[in-house]
Amino acid sequence: MDHYQPPLADISFALKHVVGYPDIAALPGFEHADLGTVVELLEQCGDFMSVAVAPTNRQGDIQGSQLQPDGTVVTPNGFKEVYRQYVEAGWGSVPLPEEYGGGGFPRTVGVVIQELMTSANMAFSLCPLLTQGAIEALVHYGDDALKKRYLPKMVTGEWTGTMNLTEPQAGSDVGALTTRAVKNEDGSYAITGQKIFITYGDHDMAEQIVHLVLARTPGAPEGTRGISCFIVPKFLVNDDGSLGRRNTVETLSLEHKMGIHASPTCVLSYEDATGYLVGEENRGMRIMFVMMNSARLGVGVQGLAVAERAYQQSLAYAQDRRQGLATGATNPSSAIIDFPDVRRMLMTQHAHIAALRYLMLLDATYVDRSTNDPDPAVRARADEIAGILTPICKSFGTDLGNELTSLALQIHGGMGFIEETGAAQHLRDIRIAAIYEGTNGIQAADLVGRKLGVRGGASMLEFLADMREIEFELTNAGAEFATIRKELSRQFDALEEATRWMLATGQADPDGVLSGSTPYLRMWGLCAGAWMLARAALAAPATGDAALADSQLVLARFHAEQLLPQCASLLGAATAGSRDLFALDADQLAGAARRVRS
Amino acid sequence: MDHYQPPLADISFALKHVVGYPDIAALPGFEHADLGTVVELLEQCGDFMSVAVAPTNRQGDIQGSQLQPDGTVVTPNGFKEVYRQYVEAGWGSVPLPEEYGGGGFPRTVGVVIQELMTSANMAFSLCPLLTQGAIEALVHYGDDALKKRYLPKMVTGEWTGTMNLTEPQAGSDVGALTTRAVKNEDGSYAITGQKIFITYGDHDMAEQIVHLVLARTPGAPEGTRGISCFIVPKFLVNDDGSLGRRNTVETLSLEHKMGIHASPTCVLSYEDATGYLVGEENRGMRIMFVMMNSARLGVGVQGLAVAERAYQQSLAYAQDRRQGLATGATNPSSAIIDFPDVRRMLMTQHAHIAALRYLMLLDATYVDRSTNDPDPAVRARADEIAGILTPICKSFGTDLGNELTSLALQIHGGMGFIEETGAAQHLRDIRIAAIYEGTNGIQAADLVGRKLGVRGGASMLEFLADMREIEFELTNAGAEFATIRKELSRQFDALEEATRWMLATGQADPDGVLSGSTPYLRMWGLCAGAWMLARAALAAPATGDAALADSQLVLARFHAEQLLPQCASLLGAATAGSRDLFALDADQLAGAARRVRS
Repeated sequence: MDHYQPPLADISFALKHVVGYPDIAALPGFEHADLGTVVELLEQCGDFMSVAVAPTNRQGDIQGSQLQPDGTVVTPNGFKEVYRQYVEAGWGSVPLPEEYGGGGFPRTVGVVIQELMTSANMAFSLCPLLTQGAIEALVHYGDDALKKRYLPKMVTGEWTGTMNLTEPQAGSDVGALTTRAVKNEDGSYAITGQKIFITYGDHDMAEQIVHLVLARTPGAPEGTRGISCFIVPKFLVNDDGSLGRRNTVETLSLEHKMGIHASPTCVLSYEDATGYLVGEENRGMRIMFVMMNSARLGVGVQGLAVAERAYQQSLAYAQDRRQGLATGATNPSSAIIDFPDVRRMLMTQHAHIAALRYLMLLDATYVDRSTNDPDPAVRARADEIAGILTPICKSFGTDLGNELTSLALQIHGGMGFIEETGAAQHLRDIRIAAIYEGTNGIQAADLVGRKLGVRGGASMLEFLADMREIEFELTNAGAEFATIRKELSRQFDALEEATRWMLATGQADPDGVLSGSTPYLRMWGLCAGAWMLARAALAAPATGDAALADSQLVLARFHAEQLLPQCASLLGAATAGSRDLFALDADQLAGAARRVRS
Repeated sequence: MDHYQPPLADISFALKHVVGYPDIAALPGFEHADLGTVVELLEQCGDFMSVAVAPTNRQGDIQGSQLQPDGTVVTPNGFKEVYRQYVEAGWGSVPLPEEYGGGGFPRTVGVVIQELMTSANMAFSLCPLLTQGAIEALVHYGDDALKKRYLPKMVTGEWTGTMNLTEPQAGSDVGALTTRAVKNEDGSYAITGQKIFITYGDHDMAEQIVHLVLARTPGAPEGTRGISCFIVPKFLVNDDGSLGRRNTVETLSLEHKMGIHASPTCVLSYEDATGYLVGEENRGMRIMFVMMNSARLGVGVQGLAVAERAYQQSLAYAQDRRQGLATGATNPSSAIIDFPDVRRMLMTQHAHIAALRYLMLLDATYVDRSTNDPDPAVRARADEIAGILTPICKSFGTDLGNELTSLALQIHGGMGFIEETGAAQHLRDIRIAAIYEGTNGIQAADLVGRKLGVRGGASMLEFLADMREIEFELTNAGAEFATIRKELSRQFDALEEATRWMLATGQADPDGVLSGSTPYLRMWGLCAGAWMLARAALAAPATGDAALADSQLVLARFHAEQLLPQCASLLGAATAGSRDLFALDADQLAGAARRVRS
């Protein structure tokens, strides 16, 4: 029942007809990654993920990673072997720089690979995801010696990477961290402190783990301006590249989590561990932002990917499970897919998932343009748009990850609540994604703080105007698109009104803007999703595939008429300001339970 | 951090000023349950639930109930002792008939007790909840001998009860069940079959368990018209009331569930077990409907109760957790309650929880009127309104249970995903409530099927008109209520439009009506919630408590302006009909993944 089928037809269509992948492949540096090559590669990748990785998902949840009495971490049965195959096949290196042994493929392709891997096994996928983040930091900020020593084996995946930000007193507020880094005579640093929530902080799938650790040097400025970034390898690396003595970093414990049980979430203790500065002292936050911005799109993809897996399972269950009689049915019993309300749950998943996939891929194409377009103006603009889309992809993608996996569970009825069914695991696994790499609230603050203010609001308004060009296309596309155009216009109006309110309120009332940030971000997600579905519906007839064209039109119309209207309903919340949020004191928020007691 | 405080001030206010409890206490048969007595009783109850029951919640989740090698079920540490105290204090008997040793208190009081107990420990609360369902069936349909033999000890709680409906092939479609009941010479029946999902089907908290079992007699009509209801005790009862030999019902296994681990969900096997007919043969479905209708309000209360517990925990965390700097703050760090987006999550929980509590209590008052009002016309009308409110309370209450516990978890950041924090347990526990006692989709079908059609739609339209009288009250209440009135009018218009569409579409297109049933039910929930909050805001000044009046106004305004507008946004989905839900075939729903493969 829980067999994962990579949605390759949807992905190929999206790449070719919806997000314009051929234009990305035409950019300098991506010539070898033409669409035909990419589609073939992705089919092989889909095979690997569905055949080798997907079957480890349930067992990984049941068994979990375990801290042994000797202080080592053992991953669930099968993980080590599957990871070896993953490294041998080179899936991790596809989107990485050729200079260090990577495939040099666009990020857009990397996003698809990540979707496939995450659908197959989210907990497993975190190890490569974190490794890629560490690689990006090194590529951009490491000196040549560090790059030469660490990157090649990290690119192949033989060595894995981690990100060490959080400390017990410093979560979202990274600036509060206290881990110390004292310079040694040989130029290395002695790192001492405790880090929590370190994903794959230790495990048995690779011989070496490269920790990226944020710490403070003596006398560094307070807050985020005094943070430096270090590489701290699990084993020191000899000059010939071989592994030397064990560094003084230890796993104190693993967290007991609601989901992603197979992913070891470590408490790590550093005691005068040997580390190497990445970039300059006190510039660690910038490096972390590079890693996190890249990872944020990746986390959005997790929402999409786990929702896709759960959707597939619920669709199969709905076709299989016979129960009662649907309207007009005369069989002894009907498959529950014939019941309207089950259909609603399926269509809601299907439409949101399609919209999310288009959005994630679109964001990735802008990332690729921002790095590889020959025109600096295009690069700069693409970077602006990726900056807008990334917090939307992260928050909206993971909020929907929560909502859609819950719908998939609901379709299973009582069986959905039984762990053996596997539906509950998807809901439990994805729940972290709205929290890590910056909570969704922080993404919303980023959208209305940093991103809205770019060029005094012009960046965002221009993007909105670009999106609205679809209204003309829809008008010219015939009667079938009429309600889509009507709803999109109405909802874009609401989004534009909210945007202008945000800009007008702006600096005069930052709390007012922040108060509306989460509903405002969701307005964006809904509109952008509907926009991409409409683009897909307009593009689909060119494929000559009537069933596909029909599907895309239905999805766009269902979304526009039945899901998108939530956007305008959030205008009130987005623009209400802070008054009612702060009107009640703590006693009043407690429902005065305490007052009656005292 | 996870200390539960019974919200007694909120409850007292709700009873006295919002749902008109004094009128209920004035009904014949409830004279002894005056408000003062009830409030005092509830304070004692709150003490017991918070001091004795609430501390068992985490341990119950960790340990779970366990099936022993000898076939018995052992509940987590502390459960047996706490249940004994519960029985001794008599909390279970408060709303039960005096004739059998109960307190004879109104259902409204029973709902409050259930809220307090469920907040304290949902998994624990299921045992008394199921027992009450079995008691109701016996009270209404059992003959005198059965009543005399079973009811007194069930009312005290010394014996517990279960409901046995589901079989592997018969979930929501109860009519498909195959358990057989063959009449013995002595008038008893031999019951043979397997039942699944039997809550507290076995446990060690009581000496006796009384199973209510649905089964078919030989030659009974197919489907739901051929189902009979039987009492099957775990131990046969001797004529002197003492326990006799063990009946042939066995626990085959316990389910591994996503939540409510402490509640043993049993697979029970009956092999020629001795059972006694309740009521007449082939009338079992009617009996089960009595039990389920009563239980449905109880399940809605679970959504409220677990959301309340989770909210309290998130509020305490938000006051405690210091992180970063809020706007304008100059302290070294701010409690996260000072951040607007955290406030939004708190206010969203607080407003919805208040609305849910008023709704549940209102429904219960109509149940009480339907049984105890001296005027048959009032009884009949109250029964109609309770019929409308019950599916709304069940579905909307449990959907919000899911959504609000997720918000509470989110406020905890990364700690929310760690099981030790306890926030995840609330989300996992409540997830079943949208499924059992009739999935929320079935509730929505009940609303647009049975309940909408009562008196050709007049019943529902009259109730809507009654609700809309608040618009006049709000108009006269002054400027502070202006936006509440404006939004309520707009949203009532949308609800009325959807209702008239449903009535007009009705029998001509049952699938069209069913297609919109879930969004339509949510429209009802949002409007009814806003209506009750407005009633509370209008009533609050009469208390003379300025802080309370202020709270109620803010809650009503926040809800009306920022949460309620979702109602009108669902009009499109409620009235779209079935076209787009059924437009895609299974291949198209599968995203054509299979097509590219073949």
